Amino acid sequence: MSDTIETLSWVGGASDGFLRLIDQTLLPLELRTIDCRNVESVWNAIKQLQVRGAPAIGIAAAYGIIVGIQNASVNSLEKRFYDVAQYLASSRPTAVNLFWAIDRMKHRYESSKISANRGSSEDLTQILNELFSEARKIHEEDRAICRAIGNYGQSIIKNGDVFITHCNAGGLATADYGTALAVFFTAAELGKKISVYADETRPLLQGARLTAWELMQRGINVTLICDSMAAMVMRQGKANGVIVGADRIAANGDTANKIGTYGLAISANVHNIPFYVAAPVSTFDLSLQDGAEIPIEERNADEICCSFGKRTAPENVNVYNPAFDVTPANYIAGIITEKGIISPVNKENIKKIITN
Amino acid sequence: MSDTIETLSWVGGASDGFLRLIDQTLLPLELRTIDCRNVESVWNAIKQLQVRGAPAIGIAAAYGIIVGIQNASVNSLEKRFYDVAQYLASSRPTAVNLFWAIDRMKHRYESSKISANRGSSEDLTQILNELFSEARKIHEEDRAICRAIGNYGQSIIKNGDVFITHCNAGGLATADYGTALAVFFTAAELGKKISVYADETRPLLQGARLTAWELMQRGINVTLICDSMAAMVMRQGKANGVIVGADRIAANGDTANKIGTYGLAISANVHNIPFYVAAPVSTFDLSLQDGAEIPIEERNADEICCSFGKRTAPENVNVYNPAFDVTPANYIAGIITEKGIISPVNKENIKKIITN
Repeated sequence: MSDTIETLSWVGGASDGFLRLIDQTLLPLELRTIDCRNVESVWNAIKQLQVRGAPAIGIAAAYGIIVGIQNASVNSLEKRFYDVAQYLASSRPTAVNLFWAIDRMKHRYESSKISANRGSSEDLTQILNELFSEARKIHEEDRAICRAIGNYGQSIIKNGDVFITHCNAGGLATADYGTALAVFFTAAELGKKISVYADETRPLLQGARLTAWELMQRGINVTLICDSMAAMVMRQGKANGVIVGADRIAANGDTANKIGTYGLAISANVHNIPFYVAAPVSTFDLSLQDGAEIPIEERNADEICCSFGKRTAPENVNVYNPAFDVTPANYIAGIITEKGIISPVNKENIKKIITN
Repeated sequence: MSDTIETLSWVGGASDGFLRLIDQTLLPLELRTIDCRNVESVWNAIKQLQVRGAPAIGIAAAYGIIVGIQNASVNSLEKRFYDVAQYLASSRPTAVNLFWAIDRMKHRYESSKISANRGSSEDLTQILNELFSEARKIHEEDRAICRAIGNYGQSIIKNGDVFITHCNAGGLATADYGTALAVFFTAAELGKKISVYADETRPLLQGARLTAWELMQRGINVTLICDSMAAMVMRQGKANGVIVGADRIAANGDTANKIGTYGLAISANVHNIPFYVAAPVSTFDLSLQDGAEIPIEERNADEICCSFGKRTAPENVNVYNPAFDVTPANYIAGIITEKGIISPVNKENIKKIITN
């Protein structure tokens, strides 16, 4: 996402290349990349949040399938492909883009198998190349999606606005410009003078480490706050909008996003501040009627008790660490997608945009 | 507050003793005390949150005056007393108990001066002894206050209840049993089986470090969460009440407490969960009409950017770090004091209890 280093990139060709990722756990102190040459390292990178953000996870998983099958033989390919796909799907259960990307790879695999069914090594190369081109397409499409979200979002942000955002829905969460942050980046490009309050986003501080860093890199005025300060910022009249990303959106618009989003939405509602979600249409899971059906990942207690190099809670304390919460659709003023803004947020309007 | 080590204690006599404090910045990893033998060390202990919590700060300041004037001469006493009082008052501008305790010491000083006005060293000893006895009284009264708050609070907590609390309003915040936590401690003593969700309380993690530790020490079932998780816990129906402490309460019941309290109150309100404040009457400042008049301390950016032992935000990022927020009276179901529960919370009911 910086001018020189991309959040994700593929280095080399389909059969000998590898996935290079910015290790986001080291930011903002260190900008270092890791090279994933096997599927385990991709799985770990997703699990450990070295790559995070729904769209970026999808892209990483697509490339993860490539590194996972590069060494397969003609006979082992079928089993290997599905094993790798299943394995990668287990890395982050809430991120629907992960399943969406893996499903796209599965469809491509099935269709490429049909055209290459003679069981030769040429077929193997052909299938690998087709899958690689699908992964490239997912990657390139994401760039275009980010830009479109940024452009559609301009109708809700004007010169002088001050927005709050939570977690990181920026370039580091995608191939390019981000989702929530794309709206800010595009506004700044268009010469709008805007300011952003970034929630630090406990427990893993993606807001402090990543969002603040991205906004500063692009010269946008950002002020870091603890998550618990957003309600006060709103009451003081210091913010006039909220934009966040999304990990999964149900058919009715209920939105799973980083833990803390729901409380932020409640506060925005109480203070009459419009609360927006920015997300690609791949984030919608129309098989889920509402937010109650969205599975919520619970993560390790250590993230809360000792995530920053020293223990800050008693040994053996009980911990509840849900990674996400669900914001009901009625708290959301609009969902900014690459196909337009869904507003008001309801089943009909969602269907109209998604199937457009 | 533990069976062997008290939050604050005075060691020795009036003229040669000193204030011993648990250094709360080291908990829960290390239970270590610091001995304050001069007023600067008391000021630092309050400023650096080695001692924190409104009642404990008041007691520390009262003893701080004693260590500050122990070496005064007959001629320097008057100036020294007022210098020390003014200096200590500058340590935490939001904590009204600080001013309340210092004012009590001033009144005692003025009255003891009248009876001892011959300017001899015997007079000096007499004034010091009287001031020391006032500090002792503030200390002892606080113990009784904690127990009374715990007892009055029993009408709002029953067997099986699950409460959320924020920051630390426990034994470590007072001479003895705490304010909000006194309600839990007393309930447990009475055989009620209760559970508590403790907000970790960013930026300084008093909930994770102190509240979780205190509750575990007394065998109460506690689950640690990030501040941003409380709204989800409420939505999941996992909690049926909230009790927090207070740093300052205006005449109309608007309550300043640790940052994050306001957002918690909003969430409780939305989920129809009663939200209580537990505080001694010394926390009320009837000179303030409402919360808008309560001054809010802003603290150092480093608390947010590098409080976990390593830097977790970009260098030079803007930070907003208010130590407190104000919860409007209409969000508060009741204020539990040592004189009874104020409910509904309004000017008239407050006046009735306070001046009782």
